This record gives sequence, C-alpha cells and structure tokens, in this order.
Amino acid sequence: MKGFAMKRIGEVGWIEKERPVCGPNDAIIRPLALAPCTSDIHTVWEGGVGERFDMILGHEGCGVVEEVGSAVKDFKPGDRIMVAAITPEWNTMAAQAGFPMHSGGMLAGWKFSNVKDGMFGEYFHVNDADGNLAHLPDGMDLGDACMMSDMVPTGFHGAELADVQFGDVVAVFGVGPVGLMAVAAAALKGAGRLIVVDSRPLSFEVAKSYGATDIVDFKVAPTEDQVMELTHGEGVDKVILCGGDQRLFETALKILKPGGRIGNVNYLGSGEYIQIPRVEWGAGMGHKNIIGGLMPGGRLRIEKLARLISYGKLDVSKMITHRFEGFEKIEDALFLMKDKPAGLIKPVVIL
Amino acid sequence: MKGFAMKRIGEVGWIEKERPVCGPNDAIIRPLALAPCTSDIHTVWEGGVGERFDMILGHEGCGVVEEVGSAVKDFKPGDRIMVAAITPEWNTMAAQAGFPMHSGGMLAGWKFSNVKDGMFGEYFHVNDADGNLAHLPDGMDLGDACMMSDMVPTGFHGAELADVQFGDVVAVFGVGPVGLMAVAAAALKGAGRLIVVDSRPLSFEVAKSYGATDIVDFKVAPTEDQVMELTHGEGVDKVILCGGDQRLFETALKILKPGGRIGNVNYLGSGEYIQIPRVEWGAGMGHKNIIGGLMPGGRLRIEKLARLISYGKLDVSKMITHRFEGFEKIEDALFLMKDKPAGLIKPVVIL
Amino acid sequence: MKGFAMKRIGEVGWIEKERPVCGPNDAIIRPLALAPCTSDIHTVWEGGVGERFDMILGHEGCGVVEEVGSAVKDFKPGDRIMVAAITPEWNTMAAQAGFPMHSGGMLAGWKFSNVKDGMFGEYFHVNDADGNLAHLPDGMDLGDACMMSDMVPTGFHGAELADVQFGDVVAVFGVGPVGLMAVAAAALKGAGRLIVVDSRPLSFEVAKSYGATDIVDFKVAPTEDQVMELTHGEGVDKVILCGGDQRLFETALKILKPGGRIGNVNYLGSGEYIQIPRVEWGAGMGHKNIIGGLMPGGRLRIEKLARLISYGKLDVSKMITHRFEGFEKIEDALFLMKDKPAGLIKPVVIL
Amino acid sequence: MKGFAMKRIGEVGWIEKERPVCGPNDAIIRPLALAPCTSDIHTVWEGGVGERFDMILGHEGCGVVEEVGSAVKDFKPGDRIMVAAITPEWNTMAAQAGFPMHSGGMLAGWKFSNVKDGMFGEYFHVNDADGNLAHLPDGMDLGDACMMSDMVPTGFHGAELADVQFGDVVAVFGVGPVGLMAVAAAALKGAGRLIVVDSRPLSFEVAKSYGATDIVDFKVAPTEDQVMELTHGEGVDKVILCGGDQRLFETALKILKPGGRIGNVNYLGSGEYIQIPRVEWGAGMGHKNIIGGLMPGGRLRIEKLARLISYGKLDVSKMITHRFEGFEKIEDALFLMKDKPAGLIKPVVIL
Repeated sequence: MKGFAMKRIGEVGWIEKERPVCGPNDAIIRPLALAPCTSDIHTVWEGGVGERFDMILGHEGCGVVEEVGSAVKDFKPGDRIMVAAITPEWNTMAAQAGFPMHSGGMLAGWKFSNVKDGMFGEYFHVNDADGNLAHLPDGMDLGDACMMSDMVPTGFHGAELADVQFGDVVAVFGVGPVGLMAVAAAALKGAGRLIVVDSRPLSFEVAKSYGATDIVDFKVAPTEDQVMELTHGEGVDKVILCGGDQRLFETALKILKPGGRIGNVNYLGSGEYIQIPRVEWGAGMGHKNIIGGLMPGGRLRIEKLARLISYGKLDVSKMITHRFEGFEKIEDALFLMKDKPAGLIKPVVIL
Repeated sequence: MKGFAMKRIGEVGWIEKERPVCGPNDAIIRPLALAPCTSDIHTVWEGGVGERFDMILGHEGCGVVEEVGSAVKDFKPGDRIMVAAITPEWNTMAAQAGFPMHSGGMLAGWKFSNVKDGMFGEYFHVNDADGNLAHLPDGMDLGDACMMSDMVPTGFHGAELADVQFGDVVAVFGVGPVGLMAVAAAALKGAGRLIVVDSRPLSFEVAKSYGATDIVDFKVAPTEDQVMELTHGEGVDKVILCGGDQRLFETALKILKPGGRIGNVNYLGSGEYIQIPRVEWGAGMGHKNIIGGLMPGGRLRIEKLARLISYGKLDVSKMITHRFEGFEKIEDALFLMKDKPAGLIKPVVIL
Repeated sequence: MKGFAMKRIGEVGWIEKERPVCGPNDAIIRPLALAPCTSDIHTVWEGGVGERFDMILGHEGCGVVEEVGSAVKDFKPGDRIMVAAITPEWNTMAAQAGFPMHSGGMLAGWKFSNVKDGMFGEYFHVNDADGNLAHLPDGMDLGDACMMSDMVPTGFHGAELADVQFGDVVAVFGVGPVGLMAVAAAALKGAGRLIVVDSRPLSFEVAKSYGATDIVDFKVAPTEDQVMELTHGEGVDKVILCGGDQRLFETALKILKPGGRIGNVNYLGSGEYIQIPRVEWGAGMGHKNIIGGLMPGGRLRIEKLARLISYGKLDVSKMITHRFEGFEKIEDALFLMKDKPAGLIKPVVIL
Repeated sequence: MKGFAMKRIGEVGWIEKERPVCGPNDAIIRPLALAPCTSDIHTVWEGGVGERFDMILGHEGCGVVEEVGSAVKDFKPGDRIMVAAITPEWNTMAAQAGFPMHSGGMLAGWKFSNVKDGMFGEYFHVNDADGNLAHLPDGMDLGDACMMSDMVPTGFHGAELADVQFGDVVAVFGVGPVGLMAVAAAALKGAGRLIVVDSRPLSFEVAKSYGATDIVDFKVAPTEDQVMELTHGEGVDKVILCGGDQRLFETALKILKPGGRIGNVNYLGSGEYIQIPRVEWGAGMGHKNIIGGLMPGGRLRIEKLARLISYGKLDVSKMITHRFEGFEKIEDALFLMKDKPAGLIKPVVIL
C-alpha cells in the first residue's frame, strides 16, 4: 500500500509498504479524512521523537473499518469510526491505575507515527480496537471528526488537569488549535473569566468565539503585568498551558493564586529543567498544584466529546481554515502546516 | 420597622418590629430588591417549617449595607451586596468539614424566615457578614442579583452533586426556576445531552434556551419509557432532581446507568421514606450514588457565580417574568407566586 | 475434567465436564487452593442467582497458569497467580468509565459460578488474563492468597466507598469475613474510632484485633441508641454495610452525621425497596451520600492489596479458622460454610 | 507578662510585654506545655522570616483558656485546649475555597512568632477561637498534645498531599519529627511499602516503628539508584518531601512512576528556583503531579487527629526524646533544638 512518510529526519515522501496485519484485538482502518498536526512537523524537521526511517506520518483522522480481529466485539467491517491519536493498551495495570496513556511506559500510549506507522496510508492499524475505536455519529462532518483525534481531547484534557470550576478566572497560554479547544473546554466547565495569552490576531478572534473574555498580547507588555492588572492584583485561579516553552511556568506561577492549579498539555521539547520560582511557589507551601499530561484516548472519551458536537455544544469547524480533497493532498496540507501562513489554524484532507 | 410577615400558618400581613441588632460579626442590610420563593408559599400555607408567629418572610434579595459589627473587615456601610438564602456560621467544625450549610445542625444554615426574620423588612440581619455577604458587581441588574440568593446557587448545586462531566447524558426532573438553573449549570459543566422532564410548555421553552436538548413530558407517557427510548436503552449518566416528590427517585434509578449519580436539591416535604428500588439499584452493588443537599452559601461561591453573569456566560433575566416596583408590592409578588399563573417563572420586586 | 458443582437449586455434587477452552486473551488455571464463600451457599440453597444446572461452583482461589492465549503478554504457563472473584472485561467503555465490574452490564463483571463455571474444578478459565490475573508474591501462604479473591477486595471496597478519612468515627455493620476486612481497611485508612455492630463473640474478638475500638451487640439494645450514646449524640462520620438486610439503611442513616457517607458492599437479595428515612436524610438535603458497589477486581488492585500482606500491614490468616487438604475436601468445606458452626470464620482447602 | 523572645536576628532572651488583648472572636491562653521547633531556630539564627524585634517565640503547645471574646461559643475559661501552629481566619474567601492556611495571603495562616507573638509567654493570643482551638481529650499527655500543633498535622498533610492509596509504594524523604509523622500517616492511609530516605540511625529506627519497610541511607549511594533497585526498576507511586532542599525534587521525579504525586511539606528557604527535570517529568506530559502546602490547621482537624492518639492508633510519645519541667526551661529546650545532639528527636517542656 501507499503512504506519506518521514523518510528520515528532514525528509518526507510517498512510499510503498505492506498493509498492516490485524491481530485478534486489532482493527485495520481505511481513512476517510486526515489532518496533519504541528507534531508531525516537529517529528520530521526537528527530530522530535528521534530518527525514524520510512515511517508513515499522521495521527489525526477518521475512517472506515476494513478488518477486525477475532476478539473484537463492538466493531465490524464497514463501520465508520473516529480514533484518538493516543491508543492505549487497556488490558494493563497503567489503564487500571487511571493512566492508560502511560500503558507500556511513560507516554507509550502514543503509537501512531512514533513507534508504528501513522494514519497517512491507504490503511492503518489500531490496537485494542474495542477500546480505541469510536463510532462516528451519523451526520458528523468528516473534517470535524479529524479534530476528535487530538485537538479536542488534548485541549479538553488541559481544562480537566486544571480542574476548572464554576466562576473560576482561568488563563490559557497559547491559543493555536489545542489552546482554542482548551478555551472551549474551560468555558464548558463554567469558567467565569477566560484570559487568553498569545500574539496572533486570528487566534484572539476565534478564542473569543469559544468563550475568551480577555485578551493578553504578550508582545505588548509582560504577561504577568497585564494579567495582574486585569485581575486587580488578585491573579487567576487556574492556568492551562498549551504553547510556548518551559519559561511560561514561571509566568504562570506568578499570576496563580494560592490553591490554584497549572494544567499543562504542551510538549516541552528541549531544555534540561523546568524552573519553578521558589518565592511565588510559596517556598513549597503555597498549594499551587502543577500537573501536565498526555491526553487519555479511548472510545468512551471520544464518543462523549463527540456528543458535544452532535448536540451543538461545540463547533470545531471554526478551527478548520483549509480543506483539501484527495489522498495525495496530504502532502500539500503537511507543507501548509510547516509554513504556518497567517490565516491558518488547521487544514483537513477529505479522501 | 415595617415587614411583610407570616402571622401564623395560613396568614400573612404587614407588621411592625424592632430593627435587628448588629453583633460584632454581623451586618444590617437595607434591601434594594426582593423576590418571593415557592418555599415562602410552603412555609406560610403548608406549614413547611412548622408554626411561626409574626415572622418576616423572604430569603431572596440584594441590598445595601447599613451597619456592620466591629469585627467585620471586608464590608462597610454603603456597600451594595448580594447574599445567599443560606448563611452558615463559618467559624465552625461543619464549615471546616466542607458542609457549612449544616453548621449548627443539619440544614441549620437556613436561617432567613425559618429561625429568624427574613428579608421582607425595611432592614434585615446577616450573621458572619464577611463570609456571607458578597459584593454586588457594578452594572448588575438588581433583579438578576435576587436570583443569586437561591435559584442560581441551588440549581448549580444540583449539577455539582450530580458531578456532571464532559459529554454526559443528564436528565433534569422539574424545570421550575431551580431546575432551569440546574439545566444551565449542567450545560456549563459540559453535559452532552440534556433531557428535561416536566409538563409545562413555558418551562420547556426556557429550558431549551438554557441548553436542554430533549424534552420529556411526563403526562404523555411514563418518564422511564420515554428516556430509555431516547437513549436507545442505555439510560443516563446523571440525574438532577429539582421538583416532584420522592417517587421520582424510583424513576431516576430506573433510567440511571451503573456508576451514575443522582443529585437532589428538591426539599422532600412529606412521607416517611424515600424508596430505592432494589433491583434497579443493583441489589446494593450498582454504584448508583445517591446524594441530596442544601446549597452551600458563602461569599466566594456567590461572587464566583455572579462572575458568570457579569461575563455573559449566564443570563438569568430569562427567568424573571414579572417585575414590580416598590416595597409594598412584595405582597402582590407573593400572591402571584402562590397562584402560579401560566406564564410565571419568577417575579422580582425592585424597591 | 472433574468439578464440584451446583446440579440444580438445592443440590450439589461432583460432575465431569470438558476442560474450558482458552481464547486469545484468556488463561486456563489449575487451582492450588480454594475457599467456599457464603455466596456459594446463597447460590445453591437460596437460588440467589436463579436456576443453574451442573455449574461448577467457587470464586475464591489461587492457582498456577496452565495455558495462555496468543495475545496474553504478562503471564505464562507455570506462573503462580491470584485472581479476583470479579473478572471484568477491560477493553470496554465500562472499564474506561472507572466501573469495570459493570462491564457487559450492571454486575456482569461477576462471572465465576454465575454466568460460567467457577473455580472448583481441575481447571478454570479466566478472561482478559493480563488484566485479571495477579502474580502470587513469593512466600505468600496459599490460604492467604484465597482471601485476595473476594474477602479482602470486597471489604476494602467498603472502606473506599465510605471514603474513610483520618480520625473519622466509622461504624461497620456485620463483621463476618467481609466486615472484618472492612474493619481492617477502615483502620488502614486512618479511622479514629471504629464501632462494629454484630452479635457474634468471635467476630467481636477478631474485629478488635483488626482495629475495632467499640463493640455494639445489636441484640442488647437498638443499634442507634447504643451508637448515639457512645458518640455523645453526635453520630458517626461514615458507615460501612457488610451484612444484614436493607432495614439497616434506616439505622445507618439515623446514626450518620450530615455530610456523611454510607458505603454498602452487602448484596441485598430480597425485597422490593430499600427505604431511606426522609427526616433523617435531611428531607433530601442532608448531604448523606449513599453508595453501594461490587468490588472492582483487576490485577493492579489485587497486587497492591497483596503488598499489604507481604509487608506485614495486614494479617488475613486470623480469619482462616479451618484448613482442609485435598481437592475432594471442597465438599466438606462448602458444607461447613453452610452449617456455620460457632468458631467458623473462613475455611480454605489446600490442593 | 514574661516571655522568651527573639530580640533580633541571632539573639534570644527573656522579655516583659503587655498581656495580649482579647477581641470578640479571640481567646487568651495560658500554656500548660510547650515545644520548640526547628522553625524557631531558622527564625532566630537564619532570619527565616526576616528581621523581628522582641517577638515572643514558639508555635507548639497546649494550654488552658484564660479569657474568651463575646462572640466565642464553644470554649470558656478553664477549658483545656490544643491549638495548631497555623491559625487561619475562617470567615474568609480563602477558607471557603478550602485553603484556610492562605487566608489573608499566601501562607498568612502562620501567625505565631511570625506576624504576632508566639506561645512562649505567660499568655498567648488565638484568633478565631471557635475555629482554631480544640478540646484537649481527657487523659491525653501534655507532651503528646504539643505534637498536635505542628509535627502531627504537618506530617499528616504530607500524606494527604501525596494522596496515598491502599498498597502504594511510598518514599518519604527526611525523617525528622515531621517526616516520622508522614511515615505514620502514610501507613495509616494504607501504604504497602514505605521507603524512608535519611542518614540518621535513630530516625531509621523510629521510622520502622511507625511503619517504614525499607531504609535508604543517602550517604551510601545515590538515592535514585537505591530506590530503583529496591523497586526492581519500577519506582514509587508517591513521594512525600519532609526535609532536605529543592534538589530533592529532581531525585523525587526520577523515582516517581507516571501518574504519581509528590507532596511537599518542607519549607524551601533559599534558592531562586526549584528545578523539575524535563525528561523525567515526561516532557510535561507524564502526569507526575507536584504539590506542596502548609498544613490547614483548625479545630476539626486537630480533634480528628487527636482521636488517633486517644484510640491507640498513633503513638507520638516515641518522638519525645527529652522532657523538661518549668516555664524557664524553654530556653534550655530551644538551645537543645539548636544543637541537635544525636539522640534528639523532639523536646517538650511541661509547665
């Protein structure tokens, strides 16, 4: 079969590979729509996961079941499905502990275009199909369905990690597509005031449509000064980190109230340490909770989040700024993601 | 001073009383707006809290601080305030345990027009002023502010007790004003599908504007049959009970999935027992959690919930179907509440 | 193969059956030790799960792996294992929701001697072996290991459901073997005062050795009177129900403080309703949380609980009052359990 | 009145002061027993809280009520009391948010010998007496009661922050008196394996008596190497930090499993940053939760923890290695604490 692959660090192209084999708990999927992710760019051009050769890219998409293993009960060939970028092994101690994304080792729930071929092929393989596939709701747009793989569940996990409560003042740092979904999620958890920190006018505009109430452009003045002024010196209840680098933890802790939480869903790709400012962290006694995590994945979660779209609670289409048609357009979509022109939030490719 | 009072069970009228005395932690408030509640009707005409003589009614309102005690730090005469119907004593073990509404004994956080005079006087008394008053945000409508005393915090507590999560299928039983706020709260906690059970067309209409996705008219067919059909036999994740009587617990348990929760904020005024159906409760092993509770009250909670109004996340004005002007109109508003004409959700009186 | 079975309601005996077949995720186990449970008695002589023909009994035991399916990763023939009475399917939405015991439907995690043959055969079958088997720690007594199937995880689940906290006053109703483990669990969660309610002198004695601080013999005076006197009228923070019938919910609610919790792990086998007394439940507003649930099962949980034994935190051997040797002694052990002589807590059979 | 005070940084001595004044919510206490704390040493000789002049020292003790304010309900002169080192203001938003220790600002619940005179006087002042005093149980040793001010509630808070669960593998770093109480608390929350990291033989010995199962002497080999070897490369579920400095966060994260928690109750007195190692923190996505916090204080908590002593669940007397008699012996006890001879864990002074 054909697939669009990372040939080595810095090089991509179309390759031929064997169609993946279906084990007893697995499924083989034929994609219906696909989307590239900033992570694909990091993987190829920054060596984000290390060297790889002829690895098919992609971890955002939806499709139709082509084949299932003998032990699969809830899906059959012909079923239209969504699937998360993270596909845990559910029959493990990590899953039983509530951390399926770390089954097989820390972060090892991330398999697509990391430890096996991704979705940008004529077919792709899904382990633990009953736990990792999700039925595509009737009438859901295929582009929207691609957002269920990573953008929606990752952004929403940010709001979960930050444990947003009714009326909280919440700051979201970085409002690319994951950050936009964190804004939507914080609003859907009842945030009272939602301050977004970024510098891109389009991001600000879309963030407002998802519920942001205040805008902080970090290029105008130091973020902490702007947030403290907006909050009359009180700071915020919760921070969700969706972009930037580890230096933002310092800013986040400066604006966070005692008893607050930082939820990080931003992959921190470089540097030896994240630095926690001692005084602002209450000399270790301020109850400022710091947590970061990979999104959970799983059928239940994806179907529940999809319900928000089906019942009109969440409109992900506002993020999809570019639509392509045809499998071969994956290449164009990926390079668009690499070039990040103004006006881009997220491209999708309908097959 | 003058007040509108329950003279005895079944009789109301205007009375003269001494202005309340202000202790070191207390405040004396002059009301700016007031609202009657169905509970006032139960109290007077059904003897809901037992016999009372010449007790000033009312537990929904906002006002201006007239006087504060020597130990009060955060409020001063002239401050405009909101206040919850439940005014706990905060310097107690019950508050430290996380259950301030039960300080002084089960349900004893409810003081207004229960164990002391209520708000329908020229002045009213608030204990633990720093903990129980809340600053009225600039620009908040005085009618809206009355909704912060009981309708909003009680309805929102229902969604908290039911522990609504992203994408949950939630049923709300009884969508009078408290139920409407439970609908709004469940939507603001990320419910995916929101089924309301009632029979009043106006309630259905307003419930939809607050986020209800499905309507069940219990007069048309048994509620459980309708809900199970809507959910293709799966049932719901959570139930919020805001009306009816104890028989609804049976219905609620029949439609609730294993692992689900019932959050009750409906005062169950009569009957010896609430009956839990054994089989549907999994013979005691189905993890169907049953909890009911009086709302917490408190400055923090009221100010946080008010933020939802100030930042446009919640519009309570849709509930206010009748507006009166002038202190003496309290009487008309109360009788309107007693008569419950079609078209009434909630009246307010602006002083 | 040979097995000791329920032939029909009211009749037991030895039968011959085919050895169970091993699917790709399954394991076949040869038992090393077995124990009968009161549930076996209910199943046979009270028809607790309905009519069954030639169903091998038993859900408490440990063994050695004889065969594993192709997809099993963590166990191999020859491994010595523990296994819980509840064996969920882990690759399901119920497990992802945190309620694996209800995978396949409410209570459907209970498979042994309910919907398939139990452990009292020469071999028995375990589904989802990676998730449901647990490695038997070196040096663990085989009789102790049998307690890990049901008595320990069920009793400990009671303390979890009741959410025992440091210094809580906890009442445990019914201190047979499950109740004794609930006592041990409540002590290991930091209960301050631990009141046990029963009437059996031996149970009281062993309960004290597990951490009970106060004894209430329900035959002496009404339980609520005794508990309220012991607690100077304050009542208890938490109740764990491990025995008796649904009438105990009324007693439990009478002694429970506002904000308290009832955790039930007692199977309620008859009656149409559990009755919640309205006034003591705060007319639906007292925050007295009522929950009951089947224990979770799973490798992680069993291995973690076994660690308590390996590291000397929990001594389950005090419950084992009778030891038999030889497979055929299962019959004697079961009839001992049926007769419940004074001096019996729990028998085990070492093969 | 007379008191033993910090005269300035580096200098202590006896001074004369006015007896403190009792406000409406306050109490004046006459001490019955007192204990110095390592924090007193930091305060005087390291300037831990900055410069102070003639400030009476001490925040560990018990006493008898001499006077109460007009609004105090639950205590009266002559009552014997315990009191925590942290005395929040309960009628505040911080307390309502669940973080009373930060009422008045981050860490501002710490008042004794920080922002007002401490306990080492003939009398001392307690704010919010109903919330901050606790009744001394009949028969409790006065030395034991001193441990309820700081050592017990701080150590126990460590186990709470780390959220120890049944069977967890827990590491406690630093087993001075606070660390010993963290060990006892982790055992009382059901830790399976309890690894203590220190270098003092006496600490190891007492830690074992409180439930430690494994000893790591950090002088022998790097802590991470020893812990990883003990746990066969798996690491630990939870870490409680009770000593050392910020460098231990790096070690803690290296031995912590994904999904684990670090609970810190160690005051980090110097340095600009706490450094979180990026890779071991899962590049921000490993769900390794980091939290540190000042203990809560409060009557409920102290009375609940004291119940553990009264009912024989916790023996704090093993920590009290030195006993003095007479008010003037405070000076000797403080210098003993400063000198930290081998054989010292904790001194108390009975008045």
